[in-house]
Amino acid sequence: MVNWHDKFAERTTYMKRSTIREILKLTQMPDVISFAGGLPAPELFPLERVREAFRAVVEHYGPQALQYSTTEGINELRDWVAARMSRSGLTITRENVLIVSGAQQAIDLVGRVLLDDGDLLALENPTYLGMLLAWRPYNLRYAVIPTDRDGLLVDRLDKALIRRPKLMYLVPNFQNPQGVTLSWERREQLVECLAEYGAVVIEDNPYGELRYSGSDIPSLYEFDASFRGSHSLDGHVIYAGTFSKILAPGLRLGWVVAPTAVIDKLVQAKQSADLQSGTFAQYLAYEVCRDGFIEGHIERLRAVYRRRRDLMLAAMDRHFPEEARWSRPEGGLFLMVSLPEFMDTSELLKEAIRHRVAFVPGQDFHVEGGYNTFRLNFSNAQPDMIEEGIRRLGQLLKEQVRQPV
Amino acid sequence: MVNWHDKFAERTTYMKRSTIREILKLTQMPDVISFAGGLPAPELFPLERVREAFRAVVEHYGPQALQYSTTEGINELRDWVAARMSRSGLTITRENVLIVSGAQQAIDLVGRVLLDDGDLLALENPTYLGMLLAWRPYNLRYAVIPTDRDGLLVDRLDKALIRRPKLMYLVPNFQNPQGVTLSWERREQLVECLAEYGAVVIEDNPYGELRYSGSDIPSLYEFDASFRGSHSLDGHVIYAGTFSKILAPGLRLGWVVAPTAVIDKLVQAKQSADLQSGTFAQYLAYEVCRDGFIEGHIERLRAVYRRRRDLMLAAMDRHFPEEARWSRPEGGLFLMVSLPEFMDTSELLKEAIRHRVAFVPGQDFHVEGGYNTFRLNFSNAQPDMIEEGIRRLGQLLKEQVRQPV
Repeated sequence: MVNWHDKFAERTTYMKRSTIREILKLTQMPDVISFAGGLPAPELFPLERVREAFRAVVEHYGPQALQYSTTEGINELRDWVAARMSRSGLTITRENVLIVSGAQQAIDLVGRVLLDDGDLLALENPTYLGMLLAWRPYNLRYAVIPTDRDGLLVDRLDKALIRRPKLMYLVPNFQNPQGVTLSWERREQLVECLAEYGAVVIEDNPYGELRYSGSDIPSLYEFDASFRGSHSLDGHVIYAGTFSKILAPGLRLGWVVAPTAVIDKLVQAKQSADLQSGTFAQYLAYEVCRDGFIEGHIERLRAVYRRRRDLMLAAMDRHFPEEARWSRPEGGLFLMVSLPEFMDTSELLKEAIRHRVAFVPGQDFHVEGGYNTFRLNFSNAQPDMIEEGIRRLGQLLKEQVRQPV
Repeated sequence: MVNWHDKFAERTTYMKRSTIREILKLTQMPDVISFAGGLPAPELFPLERVREAFRAVVEHYGPQALQYSTTEGINELRDWVAARMSRSGLTITRENVLIVSGAQQAIDLVGRVLLDDGDLLALENPTYLGMLLAWRPYNLRYAVIPTDRDGLLVDRLDKALIRRPKLMYLVPNFQNPQGVTLSWERREQLVECLAEYGAVVIEDNPYGELRYSGSDIPSLYEFDASFRGSHSLDGHVIYAGTFSKILAPGLRLGWVVAPTAVIDKLVQAKQSADLQSGTFAQYLAYEVCRDGFIEGHIERLRAVYRRRRDLMLAAMDRHFPEEARWSRPEGGLFLMVSLPEFMDTSELLKEAIRHRVAFVPGQDFHVEGGYNTFRLNFSNAQPDMIEEGIRRLGQLLKEQVRQPV
């Protein structure tokens, strides 16, 4: 018998499973109303369009759709992404685009090509759990930038950037877990700071197209190009996008848009990681999205998710105690609740599951603090479940804020 | 402007693109007959069955096939793999199976959970290029085991294992690039050595089901269990399989079968790498393979590839000079040619492309030597192209072995 535990690499001591996935197991009892996941609503997947797209793929591409293709991705999809992300005065070309296996792979590959052991990472607190987990093996140091309802506090940026972080990680739109969005003014200030310090950022934007109120704000890569007066993508920003939230996560497709020098390195890393993303899935996604279908589909998603967000916020207003505070996101899938500081939401979750309702405790999204926060998802629950789940949770909160666990 | 090259992590200096992918670009001129790639024959992809499977997926699983699923893979496919890899007296269960995005990802994930910087790797010379490239960033040391026509020379194993390598990497069946297969007797000796030294091996088996002559030989994981008298998978072997060669590479699906302690770590690494492999592709592969379809399909592949192998070997016998030596593989996609030691096949390739024929020079498959070897693929070319391509190559070789470049 081999003792495999003696064989594992040192970095595995920094690996751990996502607590969210563990919580999801707890919440799969049928009578638990779960706001814990981050799933899109499956009833909105465009199955009929997928059927048509399948026929088109088989007819137009035939066996080629099942064969190996290039690491960079199929040209049809790269061109489609490039055109969609180009702006008046800012031309993005196929050479700026790498198709990846979901935005999680973008994070993994960016880590591989940019992060050395012990590097300094600038980041919002709280931030995306999947990034924190993926980069744990690099044993990073953190330059933590606090946030408020307009996203990260840009006036604290100098303090972080003067330490010369290797990379900054940001989710500027409807951030997971808080749902907050970085304001127009702060984006302008941010790209100025990037230029001043020669700093670089990964703009992770899975939710940006799911806006339900307020006005769209350009992406960081646009602000960056505009500030530098550049018409091509040669700046400080690596952008990560995904088909998971606008089409379907089960295809495992996303994209990176970045300067060609970065794409070149990412391609080398991806070749070692999985050779390429699925050829078939890429043709299928292209045939689903083309000719404007995806734009109409996103409108339908927005209408449904907007209603669910509004229902959840209205139910929270009715049922939650005044001691609770929460974000009111203009888009995305999540909002975050803050409780009085004596509360520990990991303990609260156990009570909540006894009340047949679930959320994700906030601690794991935080590099410091956050014990008294939790995340709610509003995209995946049916309207009547939202009302009932928030009612149960509100009842529990009212008991607990007055009589601690 | 950012100088990204100042930002890249140190490990990127060890990354490089696969030279094969660069050569493939050279060989895409339509009048070049290429034996350089490693592609399955696209005309054999079971498109009609894929169509039926698609309908079944949409009908039986609906939106679930487009949703997130578990990192481990869908239960249907894990159970199918487990049943297929179980043997009389050796039960493999779902918990031993991780679905991955092609066998290349298996190599990547195994590296992440087992390899520390500077570790010693035991390996055949020559070996799979994609492994060498993927693991370059670990800056490994090599314990090189030479091979002959029966695979690695097991009597040289002690010399390697006494140095306590962290891991051994082997392709026991129809190895890429040589096409050689490790004999029954040597497998027996190998698992004895593994037990004696407490050593572990990754058995990479992409080609094992594509046998055209001779008798099947059990896998290393079977020999290992048998030697230890074990009825479950708790031994020295991590097995990597793939749907790329028996079904279609464009789905990007493979599997790892390993002791549960190893699967557990691989799941953590995969969660960070890409969350999971494509849900849709997994259901599709399951619906294609089930009910014995894939076994009949593999028979069809064998019949066609057997003929192509025989054609290539017969043409080589006719056209190649006596100074050339080559392997006569019993399966797989490749064979390897050795030329007199003064020949440099990288130089020869330039001449070959002028003669409108292409191969892969052997050097990059070798951790030492191999300048005078090259690899030929026989699965991807039509029969008439095989005859003509080998004729051209033979003519060139006859010129060159007598009159060096």
